[in-house]
Amino acid sequence: MSLVYDRVALIGLGLIASSMFWAMKRRSLAGEVRGYARSSQTRDTARRIGVCDQVCDNLQDAVKDADLIVLCIPVGAMGNVAKEIAPVMKRGATLSDVGSVKRAVIDEVAPHVPDGVHFVPAHPLAGTEHSGPESGFESLYDNRWCLLIPQDGPDPDAVARLRALWEGMGANVDLMDADHHDLVLAVTSHAPHLIAYTMVGVADDLRRVTDTEVINYSAAGFRDFTRIAASNPTMWRDVFLSNKEATLEILGRFTEELFALQRAIRLGDGDHLHDYFTRTRAIRRGIIDAGQDTNLPNFGRGNEIDKKDQ
Amino acid sequence: MSLVYDRVALIGLGLIASSMFWAMKRRSLAGEVRGYARSSQTRDTARRIGVCDQVCDNLQDAVKDADLIVLCIPVGAMGNVAKEIAPVMKRGATLSDVGSVKRAVIDEVAPHVPDGVHFVPAHPLAGTEHSGPESGFESLYDNRWCLLIPQDGPDPDAVARLRALWEGMGANVDLMDADHHDLVLAVTSHAPHLIAYTMVGVADDLRRVTDTEVINYSAAGFRDFTRIAASNPTMWRDVFLSNKEATLEILGRFTEELFALQRAIRLGDGDHLHDYFTRTRAIRRGIIDAGQDTNLPNFGRGNEIDKKDQ
Repeated sequence: MSLVYDRVALIGLGLIASSMFWAMKRRSLAGEVRGYARSSQTRDTARRIGVCDQVCDNLQDAVKDADLIVLCIPVGAMGNVAKEIAPVMKRGATLSDVGSVKRAVIDEVAPHVPDGVHFVPAHPLAGTEHSGPESGFESLYDNRWCLLIPQDGPDPDAVARLRALWEGMGANVDLMDADHHDLVLAVTSHAPHLIAYTMVGVADDLRRVTDTEVINYSAAGFRDFTRIAASNPTMWRDVFLSNKEATLEILGRFTEELFALQRAIRLGDGDHLHDYFTRTRAIRRGIIDAGQDTNLPNFGRGNEIDKKDQ
Repeated sequence: MSLVYDRVALIGLGLIASSMFWAMKRRSLAGEVRGYARSSQTRDTARRIGVCDQVCDNLQDAVKDADLIVLCIPVGAMGNVAKEIAPVMKRGATLSDVGSVKRAVIDEVAPHVPDGVHFVPAHPLAGTEHSGPESGFESLYDNRWCLLIPQDGPDPDAVARLRALWEGMGANVDLMDADHHDLVLAVTSHAPHLIAYTMVGVADDLRRVTDTEVINYSAAGFRDFTRIAASNPTMWRDVFLSNKEATLEILGRFTEELFALQRAIRLGDGDHLHDYFTRTRAIRRGIIDAGQDTNLPNFGRGNEIDKKDQ
């Protein structure tokens, strides 16, 4: 791959930014990558492990010469940061982000974007339960989707260039409208996360089942929930608060269906349960066919390597 | 490892039984393993891929000389099968099972167990989304728990021998009371499975979000739910119907907590959400420390191998 941007600024140095750094380095997609994080401890860690070519102690220093600035911070912090960097962004630069919610980010950030700066919001659908600069790895975006949400009249070249960067980092890229994005993600990510947080909280509350038992005997199911429920608390607080309507709508639907299944259990209606569980199996098949997860019988455990991701 | 049983009979030849077969072969724990499945198609598949030393066309032929008989069939079918094999079980043999619910299995099976046969119910906490004889693999039980639920006055030697078998297949073994087992599992497995089934069903229902989008953009969260929700429908129907009370109790607690979090989202109470999400993170840490999941940043994706399981 060839160079896509001369200078990139990563604002926030967590899992997403540090993975972007390693993914850009892997294919030499950026000339120089500067980074900034509000916490001096995070900046020190990033310097120590070599995340970013240069870690700046000052937000403006990271941003001022950049051709691409990416906000990799919680959604609730983006408006203020956009306001702070507005005076120093270079004319012709692209401003992007990686937030899990798009309408709220656009409402908060767009008013601060100066003329001559291209604002192209983005959302890479990738992550792990881990946070911080040490959690990043170069293959995080391989074969994952990155959705770009170009605003009214974006420069087509700016969109194409950002697409080239994400493709270079291994992702598949698609374009989507902001409101539609927020509804789709409420179904595929936001509601499931809240549900997982809830179930893990319930387990933690139950005095009748000791911690050790819940932990030792966490079969698949609960174990997967705990992984989801270990994600960054600040990031997820902001996601729920800024995608409130779509999340609450999906949770309402969820509760309705859950009550119907609880009723089937109470009444001993085995056919209802069996039909429901058979139907949900099909959607899993679709996800595997779409290449978004592995079908290996042992999930890559044992001596097998998950071949899809190589 | 040395031989634990001369002759083992596996009744039902799905994921659990076929993994037991490969795990017994790996360490030569059994002399001869006979298998039986009700479906002739399943028996043919098992013969073709070499699951069991001998696949019998007749339930009694598989059972009659066995020192250990393991029921690896849905919980709802165990009572009838126990009744059918009662006349042919060898005196001194051990009868066990692998059901995810224990009280109901004991109530259904125990009345049919003849004098001189040791009934030692068991539950290996391991599984994948896959079913059938082809889904088994020898490392499924490695470092997983298997709970034994010895009944009133079981022969200590019979319990010790079954423990040796499960330990030989790679599992950690613990003893537990049936009712307590059913409550712990309602928290760690049964309620999470019902919740995952529900969320995947909701996604499937939503006409406003097309299938392709839900499938393509299934971020972590929903993707994990679909894996859980793809588990064997018959097995899970029986689990919910036979662990009704504990499952409904936990689901009641779950709904209560979910409503509190929904309310926090609606009211914009970020502190409540942040505190809750911070607390759930800790329980995840406990599971990793207990060795029941991996902490690798990329979950064994990419070129990494999940080192814990080797």
